[in-house]
Amino acid sequence: MPPPVARFRLRVTAGDAIFVGPGKISLLEAIRETRSITAAAKSLGMSYRRAWVLVDELNRSLASAAVASAIGGEHGGGSVLTELGHELVDVYRRIETTAARACAKDLGRLLQLVAPEKTTSRSAGKKPSSGRAPR
Amino acid sequence: MPPPVARFRLRVTAGDAIFVGPGKISLLEAIRETRSITAAAKSLGMSYRRAWVLVDELNRSLASAAVASAIGGEHGGGSVLTELGHELVDVYRRIETTAARACAKDLGRLLQLVAPEKTTSRSAGKKPSSGRAPR
Repeated sequence: MPPPVARFRLRVTAGDAIFVGPGKISLLEAIRETRSITAAAKSLGMSYRRAWVLVDELNRSLASAAVASAIGGEHGGGSVLTELGHELVDVYRRIETTAARACAKDLGRLLQLVAPEKTTSRSAGKKPSSGRAPR
Repeated sequence: MPPPVARFRLRVTAGDAIFVGPGKISLLEAIRETRSITAAAKSLGMSYRRAWVLVDELNRSLASAAVASAIGGEHGGGSVLTELGHELVDVYRRIETTAARACAKDLGRLLQLVAPEKTTSRSAGKKPSSGRAPR
């Protein structure tokens, strides 16, 4: 098993509706990179249909679209991020980075609490074989 | 629909296994408050069985238990958080608070990007009826 990690997932929700979350942001990043919903879906192991639905949902929920059709180009089209799409990705990722940095110490402590023997920051000298406390 | 909110969800994972996430932390808090897995489950609209499994999973994954049986008391037993359980909840919630505070500005921007007409911080003078951009 890989070593434990503490990770933030950021979502913008209203009631039960999820406007933006890690899935949509990863998809936007993949579209930014591949300039194609088809290629982006493939790179994420997602069906084209699923990717299309997510993009459509996102575009509808925003005041203006995050993904637009590219005009012309070598392969005659494809998809690109709009200015809003770019800013959405950038702000979202910046928040994750800022949060992780601001909480670095407590995140380390959390990992230590959860898996003291699997993290490198545990106090030296503690016996790894001290066993489980009674439950 | 309630106004959109941006929220962090913090998880400690190793591969596909989730050690700690929002569900387990809420359950610990409910146990801390009610001193009973049964009452905690009820307050969260969760079956006793589900709550028990989560507590068992958590206790097994930690170096020592987060929830223990209380000895005696008015109702002869119940469950309490151990010192580790208390610290787990406290560190987890502190991380969320610190993260939200550190990212307040970008979180506001993210909400504005996602729902400019539903957040109070949108720039004054912008016409709410400007309509949706072409997709």
